[in-house]
Amino acid sequence: MIAKLVSEIKKKEAPIVVGLDPVIDTIPQKIVDSAVSEYGETLEAAGRAILEYNKGIVDAVYELVPAVKPQIAMYEQFGLPGLTAFTETVNYCRSKGLIVIGDVKRGDIGSTSKAYASAHLGTVKIKNTTIPVFDEDFCTVNPYLGSDGVKPFIDVCNENDRGIFILVKTSNPSSGEFQDRVLHDEDSTLYEAVGIKVNEWASLSMDGEYSNVGAVVGATYPKMGEILRRIMPKSYILVPGYGAQGGTGADLKPFFNSDGLGAIVNSSRGIIAAYKKEKYARFTADGYADAARAAVLDMREDIRANI
Amino acid sequence: MIAKLVSEIKKKEAPIVVGLDPVIDTIPQKIVDSAVSEYGETLEAAGRAILEYNKGIVDAVYELVPAVKPQIAMYEQFGLPGLTAFTETVNYCRSKGLIVIGDVKRGDIGSTSKAYASAHLGTVKIKNTTIPVFDEDFCTVNPYLGSDGVKPFIDVCNENDRGIFILVKTSNPSSGEFQDRVLHDEDSTLYEAVGIKVNEWASLSMDGEYSNVGAVVGATYPKMGEILRRIMPKSYILVPGYGAQGGTGADLKPFFNSDGLGAIVNSSRGIIAAYKKEKYARFTADGYADAARAAVLDMREDIRANI
Repeated sequence: MIAKLVSEIKKKEAPIVVGLDPVIDTIPQKIVDSAVSEYGETLEAAGRAILEYNKGIVDAVYELVPAVKPQIAMYEQFGLPGLTAFTETVNYCRSKGLIVIGDVKRGDIGSTSKAYASAHLGTVKIKNTTIPVFDEDFCTVNPYLGSDGVKPFIDVCNENDRGIFILVKTSNPSSGEFQDRVLHDEDSTLYEAVGIKVNEWASLSMDGEYSNVGAVVGATYPKMGEILRRIMPKSYILVPGYGAQGGTGADLKPFFNSDGLGAIVNSSRGIIAAYKKEKYARFTADGYADAARAAVLDMREDIRANI
Repeated sequence: MIAKLVSEIKKKEAPIVVGLDPVIDTIPQKIVDSAVSEYGETLEAAGRAILEYNKGIVDAVYELVPAVKPQIAMYEQFGLPGLTAFTETVNYCRSKGLIVIGDVKRGDIGSTSKAYASAHLGTVKIKNTTIPVFDEDFCTVNPYLGSDGVKPFIDVCNENDRGIFILVKTSNPSSGEFQDRVLHDEDSTLYEAVGIKVNEWASLSMDGEYSNVGAVVGATYPKMGEILRRIMPKSYILVPGYGAQGGTGADLKPFFNSDGLGAIVNSSRGIIAAYKKEKYARFTADGYADAARAAVLDMREDIRANI
C-alpha cells in the first residue's frame, strides 16, 4: 500500500494529506441547520452534517491530493450516527480514488490489537463469509504496548496490502513528557527507541522502496524529525501539526529525503476550516469547499518552496 | 465515580471485573447459528450473537460483581453492528446496576482526546440539546501523548462524575519493550515515570479516599505492581491478566492495600468462556452463563484466599 501512496504523491506532486476532522462549530451554519431541521437536535443530525461537509471538501480537493485522514474521534463523539458518517466518509473518499488514512491511534494486547487490525484494515469472518469492516487503507497505531500490540497490525498489512503509521513523536505540546525521556542504557530518548523499533518492524512489510510500516512525527518538532528521518530510512513519515498547530513550511525539510519523498504532511483545520481564516474569508461559509481548495494549493506551494 | 465503585466492591465483597470480550469462536454455536439464521452471515448477525451471549453472562453474574469491562475492539471489529452491540451491552449492564469500564485505550492530542472523553464519559451538544453518547462509567486511557492527551478525560471525569484507568504497566508479554526502559535522569523505569504522573493527575479528581484517576497494571507483573501500588496511593489499580493470560491469585496481593482495597481484578476469557475449560465442561455450551457464574465464585474464593 505504501507503493501506491508514493505513486499518488508523485502523480499529484503533493505530499499532502487533508485531515477530515470535522468540528460542529466550524461546519457552515447552513449545513448544520439543514440537518437539524431534518433530524432534530440529535446525533443523527451531527452525523449527516459532518458527511455533507466532508463531501463538499472531498469534491473540491480530491484531484489535488493523494490522501485524506479522517480522525475517528471526531466521529466517535457522535456515537453510532457519527461512526456511520465515518464509514460513509471512508467509502466516499475511496470512491474518489483517495487513499484513506484512518487516524484511530489504536493499540492493545495481541489478541485485541488483532481485532482492531481486522476492524480498520482487514476483514472478519462470519461462518463462511469474509467481510471488510471500516476498510481504511492505512491506520495509525499507538506503540506503548510494544511488539505484540503492533505485530497483529503488520500481519494484516501483509495479508491485505495495507499500511500503518506508528506514533513516534507526536505533535502536541506535552508529547515530550514521556517521549523525550532520556534512556539510561543507550543515552537516547524514548522516541528514538520507538523509532528504532519502527525501523525493525518496517522490514517485516516492505512494499517497493518503502515499508507499509510508517511513523507519525509532528511538524512541531523538526529537529527530532531530522533524527528520526535517519533512524527509520524505510518508513514514510506522516507529519501532523502543520498549520493550525504551529508547524510551518520551513519546519518540514528535515522530514523529507533529498528526493522530496519520505514524508507526507497533514493539515486538518487549516484546510477544512480555511473559510474561517481572514486569508480565505472572501470565500464565505457557502464557499468553504473552495476555501479548502485554495488552502491546499497554498500549502502545496509552501511545501514545494521549502523541501 | 471511584467512591461508587469502592462502595460496590465492599457491598459485593468482590474486587472483580468481568471482561466482556466476546470472541465469535467461543460464543456457543447455538447462539451464533440462531443469529445467522435471522440475519445471514453478516456483521448484524455477529452483533446480535454477541449481545445475546453478553446478556446471558450479565444475568448470571450481576449480583456477584460490581463491574464489567467490555473491550471495545471485540465489538469494533464488527463495524457499526458490533458497536451497536457495544452500546446495548453498556446500557444493559447499567440497567442491572453494574458499573461499566469501557476498555477503549483511547488517547490523542488535546482537542481530539476531548472528543474521545465526550464520546465515552461525557456528552455532546447539538445546538441546545445535550446528549450522552456511549455513556460508560470509566474508560481506559493511553498515556503516550502526555498530559494534554490525558487532561481532557480528567475534566470530563470532574464535570460528569466519571473515572479513568490509565495504562501504566500492561499485562502483555512485550509490555516491557518500552514500559520497562530505565530512564537516565532518575534511575527509574518508564512505567514508574508514568505512575508518578498518574499520581499527580490523581490529585485533580479525588472522590473520597481514592481518585477517579486510576491505573492499569497487569497481574502478570506482581513485583512491578508492588512498586506501583506505593507510587500511586490515591489510585485504584485495574488489574488485567488474571487467568487466561497467566496471572494467578498468588500474584494479586501486591496490588492491594492491607485493608483489601485499592485494586480490582479483571478476568475475561476465564469467566465468559469458562464452559470451554475442562473444569467447567459439565455446564456444557447451553450452560455457558452458569459456567461463568461458577468461575466468578471460584475467582472470588481465590482472591479472598490470597489478599
